[in-house]
Amino acid sequence: MRIGKVIDNVWATRKDEALVGVKLMIVQLFDRPRGEEGAMIVAADLIGAGIGEKVIVTEGSSARQMGSLNCSPIDAIIVGIIDAEKKTPGGVG
Amino acid sequence: MRIGKVIDNVWATRKDEALVGVKLMIVQLFDRPRGEEGAMIVAADLIGAGIGEKVIVTEGSSARQMGSLNCSPIDAIIVGIIDAEKKTPGGVG
Amino acid sequence: MRIGKVIDNVWATRKDEALVGVKLMIVQLFDRPRGEEGAMIVAADLIGAGIGEKVIVTEGSSARQMGSLNCSPIDAIIVGIIDAEKKTPGGVG
Amino acid sequence: MRIGKVIDNVWATRKDEALVGVKLMIVQLFDRPRGEEGAMIVAADLIGAGIGEKVIVTEGSSARQMGSLNCSPIDAIIVGIIDAEKKTPGGVG
Amino acid sequence: MRIGKVIDNVWATRKDEALVGVKLMIVQLFDRPRGEEGAMIVAADLIGAGIGEKVIVTEGSSARQMGSLNCSPIDAIIVGIIDAEKKTPGGVG
Repeated sequence: MRIGKVIDNVWATRKDEALVGVKLMIVQLFDRPRGEEGAMIVAADLIGAGIGEKVIVTEGSSARQMGSLNCSPIDAIIVGIIDAEKKTPGGVG
Repeated sequence: MRIGKVIDNVWATRKDEALVGVKLMIVQLFDRPRGEEGAMIVAADLIGAGIGEKVIVTEGSSARQMGSLNCSPIDAIIVGIIDAEKKTPGGVG
Repeated sequence: MRIGKVIDNVWATRKDEALVGVKLMIVQLFDRPRGEEGAMIVAADLIGAGIGEKVIVTEGSSARQMGSLNCSPIDAIIVGIIDAEKKTPGGVG
Repeated sequence: MRIGKVIDNVWATRKDEALVGVKLMIVQLFDRPRGEEGAMIVAADLIGAGIGEKVIVTEGSSARQMGSLNCSPIDAIIVGIIDAEKKTPGGVG
Repeated sequence: MRIGKVIDNVWATRKDEALVGVKLMIVQLFDRPRGEEGAMIVAADLIGAGIGEKVIVTEGSSARQMGSLNCSPIDAIIVGIIDAEKKTPGGVG
């Protein structure tokens, strides 16, 4: 998994029907050494992460192991929200 | 998933028979920090994305969870077209 | 698999229920040439790795082949702890 | 998928028996922005690509969705040969 | 698949039981353009590769398609040993 920070929503009216009703968030990864910014990905969110929160993201086929997404074309999902009081890499929260 | 911009079609007359009739687009990813260009990939398109549109691309085995592509040798697919009025990374649309 | 060093725990009170009770560790990978630091990932740990230990991490769907994690949204797991007396890349242990 | 150019064959007399008779080619990817060279990978070829041809390569588990390779330890395969008259990234053909 | 050179063994007394008896080798990949060194990975070896030999490595779920590793937490495996007389990238052998 990777640590990242939710920075925005992303809206797509035209999309695969399996994604209708699935909340999609833009997550800035903080997986690089020395505080460099990592990739910016789009992750599905079933647990209610908000913009600015630090999250744990699972990628690949493992992203389809959560909730009802088993047959959805999803390759990244937010699986946890990092506790704010815990100091973790990336310098946020 | 990754955000990208459709920049071209790609044509291959000689190809695996499972890809016959599948529209393939070249997508320039915008997943790098600070607006740097990301990788240039080839993604299948079942939802009618046009050149110049910003899209969401799913990669890996999850790309085979859409439509009739379950047993196709496809590792990237366009799953959504980002709404033009929404400002998203990459500076397009 | 990749070699890495466990550098911290990560705590997430709000998370997918399949992750409740699963110990999550931050691992700094040492997979770059010439001793450069690699990515910082979050890996599940079922074998009791401690902070500072050098470990072997498996990523992707293969991370779900261990223990009871078959249907968990896990994409990285610690599969071995490198023997301390053995000199391995990364300069630790 | 990625665009690449076939640059050589690769020969391995000692190999997994599932790979006996499978043609393996070295492919230089052209997936970086601004014409930079990408990674050099080894891809299986079932469609008769020749050295110098531009091809589309599928990676990951999707590479096992073609022909009789379903249970082979193959993670990259040539799925199409790009039409020579079509101008595509990489400056070849 | 990627081309690499076996540079060392890796020893882990404490490990997942599915890995007991599986030989693990450190492989330096040669998949970068212009002879740059690639990532250093740990790959399982069932075909008897020796230190210094150039090998072909399969990654991801495809690494579990070989021998009895179907349910093992393995994400990289040596699938072939490149013939020494054949000149291939990386300048070895």
